Amino acid sequence: MNTVAVLGLGDMGSALARALLSAGHAVTVWNRSAAKAEPLADLGATVAGSAAEAIATSELAVACLLDYASVREVLGTASLSGRTVVNLTNGTPRQARELAEWVAARGGKFLDGGIMAVPPMIGKPGAFVFYSGPRDVFDAHRDAFAAFGGINYAGEDPGLAALHDLALLSGMYGLFVGVLQAYALIRSEGLSAVEFAPLLSGWIAAMAGFTEQTAVEVDRGDYSQGVVSNLAMQAAAFDNLPAAAADQGVSAELIAPLHRLLVRGVADGRGAQNLSSVIELLKK
Amino acid sequence: MNTVAVLGLGDMGSALARALLSAGHAVTVWNRSAAKAEPLADLGATVAGSAAEAIATSELAVACLLDYASVREVLGTASLSGRTVVNLTNGTPRQARELAEWVAARGGKFLDGGIMAVPPMIGKPGAFVFYSGPRDVFDAHRDAFAAFGGINYAGEDPGLAALHDLALLSGMYGLFVGVLQAYALIRSEGLSAVEFAPLLSGWIAAMAGFTEQTAVEVDRGDYSQGVVSNLAMQAAAFDNLPAAAADQGVSAELIAPLHRLLVRGVADGRGAQNLSSVIELLKK
Repeated sequence: MNTVAVLGLGDMGSALARALLSAGHAVTVWNRSAAKAEPLADLGATVAGSAAEAIATSELAVACLLDYASVREVLGTASLSGRTVVNLTNGTPRQARELAEWVAARGGKFLDGGIMAVPPMIGKPGAFVFYSGPRDVFDAHRDAFAAFGGINYAGEDPGLAALHDLALLSGMYGLFVGVLQAYALIRSEGLSAVEFAPLLSGWIAAMAGFTEQTAVEVDRGDYSQGVVSNLAMQAAAFDNLPAAAADQGVSAELIAPLHRLLVRGVADGRGAQNLSSVIELLKK
Repeated sequence: MNTVAVLGLGDMGSALARALLSAGHAVTVWNRSAAKAEPLADLGATVAGSAAEAIATSELAVACLLDYASVREVLGTASLSGRTVVNLTNGTPRQARELAEWVAARGGKFLDGGIMAVPPMIGKPGAFVFYSGPRDVFDAHRDAFAAFGGINYAGEDPGLAALHDLALLSGMYGLFVGVLQAYALIRSEGLSAVEFAPLLSGWIAAMAGFTEQTAVEVDRGDYSQGVVSNLAMQAAAFDNLPAAAADQGVSAELIAPLHRLLVRGVADGRGAQNLSSVIELLKK
């Protein structure tokens, strides 16, 4: 009964199963189309004929499917009594919370997870996974989780793994917004993005202080300490960005909402505060 | 005639004047309201009664004013023949190019600059300034420029300093978008942004590869090499971000345009390419 079931053998599910096998775990795999199981069978995995069979023979079942609807469909075929389900399918905090109740109603234990890696990184340095749900359930399976990479327990609320995952993805996509806009401007003059890249990387790295300072301010709800370049100044200077983009034939669509938010922040009486003050206007 | 004139003594102009004085340059300062000149006079600056007087007694005039209209107004009072004007006022590439022609028509030499620092950083490690305009004019004044911090010559086209400046600012504001969205999600559950900050900083630092890889792809115009998580997959998974934000009572306005751009990229037939491919859709 120390077998780990892996349900769903897309690129990520297959990577998770391989990592478990590499770490010496007994692994049972299942996928809707059986062909995906073959390379894992070659590595020593047992191929189950159904998800129910995989779950029946494993104390721990790792689900990595298309979406939460697929997870319910697959788990709905099995008895979950006495089983632990770890859902590593992409989703939202609400979906994770609802799935946790659904699994509990069927007698199972539940953890949700958020994988911070692409499949080739699984089990390698840099990969890590957020987990949330009951601490004792998490602790009971740390050994299996260690196969995937770093482990970050986000809390008892099953929605917190997805919340942390999506917060980091938000940070990443913001970075992408900035990088794409920067290169679009540089390329508008036919200049080399590769030559510009070290400047951009260095500049972004130099901005690490914003991430730290903003965290302190946000926790305090006080944005008036140590103001150097205040919101009003930044909102005014920001005008140059869409103006330059328009002149250079580059869309400013990616940065326009921040511009509008800064202007709203000034109108809201926050002009003398730090820029981070506008986070208060993101609350609905 | 080795005097440097500084026109405009706001926080930045004053910082520039102080840095020149610290580096041993003879400095003449002028400001519309004379009171701002007093602290600099105490440090050894000569206070000119007019911008024309400051320019007449200095080979190099550094302008750091509210905007380009102010620069023309101030320079328009002086004879520029044989003088070099370095404009460090915030603006766009087009404004810099137009000002360069305007100064040339009055017999002056012109460089434009983009300061990558806030006033307290001037002359200290980390501060640097982009310069653009004729190389020989730039070379003739490197010694004075060294007082401000690092020196980055962006090219002969006078618009290139502002272009590089705004490209880096775009990168920075993208980062801010991501950091604000991330903390808004974290705070929506009452969690500590300070505790989350190291995860976010580490994650953003781990994304440095995106900046480098995208530069190569953008220069090549080829986004189909080494695809791991393709645009279609990311566009689909991105749906979780606005959905989670809505559930958590957080506005998704800052990240919505990237979402729309990814979806447009898929519709444009780029789904199997890297996400960076959408930069092509920013061209107008």
